[in-house]
Order: sequence, then structure tokens, then C-alpha cells
Amino acid sequence: MKNKPSLYTCLSPALLNLYEVSSSIVVIIDALRATSTIAAALHNGAKSIIPVDSVAECIKLGKQMEVITAGERDGKIAEGLAYGNSPFTYPKEFIKGKTLVLTTTNGTKLLHMALAKNAKAIITGSFPNLSAVCNYITEQKQNVILACAAWKDRVNLEDTLFAGAVINRVKDNFSINCDASKIAETLYNEAKDDLYEFMKNKDASHYHRLTNYGLEKDIRYCLTIDVDNVLPMYEEGRLIAK
Amino acid sequence: MKNKPSLYTCLSPALLNLYEVSSSIVVIIDALRATSTIAAALHNGAKSIIPVDSVAECIKLGKQMEVITAGERDGKIAEGLAYGNSPFTYPKEFIKGKTLVLTTTNGTKLLHMALAKNAKAIITGSFPNLSAVCNYITEQKQNVILACAAWKDRVNLEDTLFAGAVINRVKDNFSINCDASKIAETLYNEAKDDLYEFMKNKDASHYHRLTNYGLEKDIRYCLTIDVDNVLPMYEEGRLIAK
Repeated sequence: MKNKPSLYTCLSPALLNLYEVSSSIVVIIDALRATSTIAAALHNGAKSIIPVDSVAECIKLGKQMEVITAGERDGKIAEGLAYGNSPFTYPKEFIKGKTLVLTTTNGTKLLHMALAKNAKAIITGSFPNLSAVCNYITEQKQNVILACAAWKDRVNLEDTLFAGAVINRVKDNFSINCDASKIAETLYNEAKDDLYEFMKNKDASHYHRLTNYGLEKDIRYCLTIDVDNVLPMYEEGRLIAK
Repeated sequence: MKNKPSLYTCLSPALLNLYEVSSSIVVIIDALRATSTIAAALHNGAKSIIPVDSVAECIKLGKQMEVITAGERDGKIAEGLAYGNSPFTYPKEFIKGKTLVLTTTNGTKLLHMALAKNAKAIITGSFPNLSAVCNYITEQKQNVILACAAWKDRVNLEDTLFAGAVINRVKDNFSINCDASKIAETLYNEAKDDLYEFMKNKDASHYHRLTNYGLEKDIRYCLTIDVDNVLPMYEEGRLIAK
């Protein structure tokens, strides 16, 4: 019997160096809201998404190419950019066929770390594209790292919950010798009946932050399974739908 | 109304730099088995315990002072040392009035990190001294960091569970804006009816490792609440019972 591939959960970018990135598919998880918005935009027909670290880089690319620039800081569209980080900003009639340059902090940093460490493949995951992620990693039969973007390196609830949701679905196909994965799955099992209520009851730090900005609707959307069931894969500097 | 002090959970030593150590009491958690053995030895009357990083340092101190040297590597007493890491090794009739030099890897490293960052106070915590830890941090009314020793920086189940047990008891006395704490408490609530069965069912990595060494009895002891209810505090290079 062939050994199953391994699956690990990395709860913070600051822990990524503990895992064998170069022999793994890395799933970048930034559930509130970057990777959910990426799924929404690609599902609605965006040609590609270029994730960048900084507002300045976003503005620079916006001047060089015909693209839509987007990004928020402290819950508002960042100065010099055109659009925000909400999945609702990118319906089909607006985004179809266009390229989006999106600046996020935690998720983009982690994606670039995985790239620098020569990940075998990099995809992004969120509840809106849960099944696409699970199907892909199951079919590939390769080692997987579920990499949580966290919040300034601090472990967060929503990314851990998403890792748990993936594990809950794919665990029979992987060898999981990883306590972080077991913690994530236990958390997900506790939360799965109502992810939004769980986040609210726990007063998750990012739930709190986004609710203060009036973004409950975004949180609900970002916790909804398979509404944008696309597979965003990073290739040559861009995320494209596979 | 005076603001409550803050409480954070740091799930791995690699994340300690994210927290304000110098304004906090740090609880070092290395539940299987270092901090449990420390509680047992001090509860049984050890005069003090000197935690050291390496077997070599342990041997060196053993030659300089009249102490008991102890430490394991890969489940066996390390070469050149006299005793092991099991709480059962240190009954009253053996350890009373004596000084123990104990080498552990994960826990000692973390303790020295907290020391280097000028923690306000450093204590050690484990299920055998859960109440002593909870009472102390509640009475002090200072900020607290529950610092998990983890396993070579990888998050582990047992230390996270202990953090959750503390939070479950003291949460009304602290302001807890920390998702890691919420994850830990959720995990503990899921596990609390039978901590041993939970560790076994999840096949926790360190449960697996110790069971392979025939140490189920140690695991059960280290998951037993308040059997060695003493407060180990680090002062001038030693842990002493307060």
C-alpha cells in the first residue's frame, strides 16, 4: 500500500519555516477577507488577480497596466486605490475579463514566503471555494500545507476554522501527524453548525474589527461554503482560475 | 471601573516576540512532562529546581554542586545523567530538601526567552498545579501570557489544552482579546470530560511518542488536575515553591 501524502496546518506565517514547503502544495488561507474576495472575483470571471504587498506597489501597477486597483487599510479604501476588499465589490458585470491588483497584508506576505521557499504549487482557500480546494488537494496526491495568514503573525480563529473544514473533508486521504491540524478540526467541528454565530459568540478579533466597520454582511459571505467554487492558482505572478 | 488586565496565549515559542513580555507574568507550559515533573518534585519537597538547556550543562552543574541531575533524550535517561523526566521519579522520600538540575529542551528554551525579555514574573504551569497557577495570576491582577513550550516550535495539543484550562477558570478576571486563547478554551471544553481519552483519540503527537516509550502512566499523571498543587516560581536561576 502506498503511503498517504502528509498534511500539516501552519497556524501563522511565523511558523512556516518549520514545514517542508518545497515538497508541498501550499494553500494560502486569509478567510476574512482576502482569499474569499479572490474566490469571488475569479468566480465572477476576473481574468487574473495580482496580489501585492503594499498600496504603493498597487498604485504603481495601476499606472503601468490596465487593471483595477484595490485594497483597504483600517476598513476604508486605501488612498490612491479605486476599490475595496469586499467580495461584493466584484460582481460579474464589473469584473469579467478584467485584471485586479489587490493589496492585502497578511495573505500576500504569506504567499510570497511560500513562493520564496519553492512550494510545488500555491493555491488560495476560503469557505466560498472550500470544495474546489478539497478536490484539488485530494486529486494531486501530494503533501499539503494549510497555511493560515493569521493577523500580523497572531493565530486567528477564521483561518484556523477553514483549515479545520478542509481537514474534516480530506483527512482520510492524508497522513496527519500534526497537532495543529487536530486542534483546527476540533475547532471546526465545534463551529460548523453555524460558523457566523461561533465567530460572534467567541468575539473573534477580526469579527470584532470588521463589525466595527459595519461589515457583518461581508463576514457572513466569507463564511459561506462553495458560493464561489473556483480554484485560484498562483502562476507567474498572478492568481488565475483553474 | 478599573480595566481588567490582559491575558494572551502564545501557542509556540516562535511567536513569543509578538507579545509584551516585559509587562506580563509569563506562565511556562510544558505539560508532557517537564512542568508536571517540576510541580511533582517541588510539591514533594525539592529545595529548588535548576532548569538547563543541555545535557552538557546538566553534567557540569552536577560536578560543581551537590545536586541530582536529570534529563531524557528519546525516552531514555541521557548519558551522563542520573535520573529521568518522569514525575514518578521524585517522591518525597527521595527528593525532599534536595536540588534537582533538570534538562529539558522546549520548556527551558522558552523560560530563558521569557527571562531575556524581562518578564515581570515567570512561573510554570501544568495540570498537576492548575489551581495554584490560576489563583496566583488572579490575585496578582497583572497582564498574563500563557506561553506554550510546544514541540520544536510546533503547536501541540497538551500545552494548548492546559492554556484552555486556565482560561476556562480565570476568564472573568481578564480582558481576553486573543483568538489563540479562544481556540485553546474551545479545545479544553471539548476535552475536559476525559483529557486522557481526548489525547488518545486525537492521537496527539506527544501522546504517540510517549506511548511508544511505554509511558502511558506518565501521561495520565501529567493530565491529572491539582495532584501537586504548588506554585513554581523562577528566581535567580532556580524554580522554587511559593
